[in-house]
Amino acid sequence: MEIHELQEFLSNEFPQSSVRIEALGELGATVRQRIDQSHLRPGGTVSGPVLMTVADVAMYVALLNRIGIVPLAVTTNLTINFLRKPSAQRDIIGVCELIKVGRSQAVGEVALYSEGNDEMVAHVICTYAIPRPDLGSISS
Amino acid sequence: MEIHELQEFLSNEFPQSSVRIEALGELGATVRQRIDQSHLRPGGTVSGPVLMTVADVAMYVALLNRIGIVPLAVTTNLTINFLRKPSAQRDIIGVCELIKVGRSQAVGEVALYSEGNDEMVAHVICTYAIPRPDLGSISS
Amino acid sequence: MEIHELQEFLSNEFPQSSVRIEALGELGATVRQRIDQSHLRPGGTVSGPVLMTVADVAMYVALLNRIGIVPLAVTTNLTINFLRKPSAQRDIIGVCELIKVGRSQAVGEVALYSEGNDEMVAHVICTYAIPRPDLGSISS
Amino acid sequence: MEIHELQEFLSNEFPQSSVRIEALGELGATVRQRIDQSHLRPGGTVSGPVLMTVADVAMYVALLNRIGIVPLAVTTNLTINFLRKPSAQRDIIGVCELIKVGRSQAVGEVALYSEGNDEMVAHVICTYAIPRPDLGSISS
Repeated sequence: MEIHELQEFLSNEFPQSSVRIEALGELGATVRQRIDQSHLRPGGTVSGPVLMTVADVAMYVALLNRIGIVPLAVTTNLTINFLRKPSAQRDIIGVCELIKVGRSQAVGEVALYSEGNDEMVAHVICTYAIPRPDLGSISS
Repeated sequence: MEIHELQEFLSNEFPQSSVRIEALGELGATVRQRIDQSHLRPGGTVSGPVLMTVADVAMYVALLNRIGIVPLAVTTNLTINFLRKPSAQRDIIGVCELIKVGRSQAVGEVALYSEGNDEMVAHVICTYAIPRPDLGSISS
Repeated sequence: MEIHELQEFLSNEFPQSSVRIEALGELGATVRQRIDQSHLRPGGTVSGPVLMTVADVAMYVALLNRIGIVPLAVTTNLTINFLRKPSAQRDIIGVCELIKVGRSQAVGEVALYSEGNDEMVAHVICTYAIPRPDLGSISS
Repeated sequence: MEIHELQEFLSNEFPQSSVRIEALGELGATVRQRIDQSHLRPGGTVSGPVLMTVADVAMYVALLNRIGIVPLAVTTNLTINFLRKPSAQRDIIGVCELIKVGRSQAVGEVALYSEGNDEMVAHVICTYAIPRPDLGSISS
């Protein structure tokens, strides 16, 4: 899949999000969140919800690139460990690596960085349910 | 602590957030996120990051109410299970129950609901690190 | 389902385990692990793996009681927070509450206690995949 | 640290465990659990608690190798995703990579494999609390 195709889909699905896709591959994806004042907390750090959002989108993008655009794929579990204070002056880079893509479930991990620093600011494990065409909904 | 005091602190700490505190107690807190178009995904559901944000704030509020306003308390781990599709027409209610509040760490759980429906839409476990006065920072 | 039926099934499925079922209900189950020397670590505390095992079994029992004996139900995610040092002299009691039982997935939480002390020693969230008759295996 | 020193400590701390240390490095550790009948469930697979135990030990070993033998280091959170059915005929190999080792907390991930197969059977994130000499206990 081309980056621009998936970016377009993403912008429709998450109109509030400004996450940009940087790279796509069989095994994962890299995304970037430009950081501005709206993402910060007093004291000058990126807020936790911003990090969780970037991770969720990175996983979504990596998965859709692998299985095709399946709008009903939904996050079922997300586990985040916050490790270091992100820089307020740097974009957040999310690097997703798919661990398993099965018929009905996918698991991936996302490493989050402040751009230019190779120490992870947060680590995320994400599980997605993949709907089956014949079943309508995966929610129950 | 009075709700309005904590609400004021919250509005300064998370200026982007519109979460409102509904109730405070020794064992927890209840918060509300009014849902509008900016919180939705196409297809009419509340986006995952909105749910994660409400949970994080509910835990923060419950903890600060218990230990006093300690601005440096930070989330260290958040684990969310998405259970059901939230309603696009209903506010999200977050009910936090503190499981343990220790000297250096606190753990709580948050149940998230679409208002008026008693089936949980998501369940969250949240861990906070509580800084110690003599140590300056808890981040390392 | 009767406790003795499920206990018998459990003893066959987990022959190494000595967990006993104490109570069963629509919404959950209570189990007990008798603690002896083989469950302890030096310094006199119950080892982490013992706690994880009790939680996993408590969830399994609660789920099977609800959906019938489906031997292929498998844990997909388990998240445990260790909260306090369990007593070496007390049995471990696991109280599982089912949060959601859907067609293909179930989520529950388990509170673990040292008997006679109402402060939780560990808190667990557990996700099970429920196989569908027509699909043979849920593992991929 | 030499493998045999840490192995000896481990055998004292976890006398029930037969996990063997295979490799130690600045960034992590590799361990092996020989699989015999006592680790299996009917149907021929390694039980979940065995996998959790191997992961916990792999993290413990990697951490102690890095910070020195600190017997009071304790797991605070363990999150496991079960991905594929392990082989009943193969040993379980656990590969721990430390993500962060701070003053008071360490986070690592552990990939678990059936020996000879490079598809992960389970993925674990583990958080340890590191006690501070002056504080006696980190548990509250």
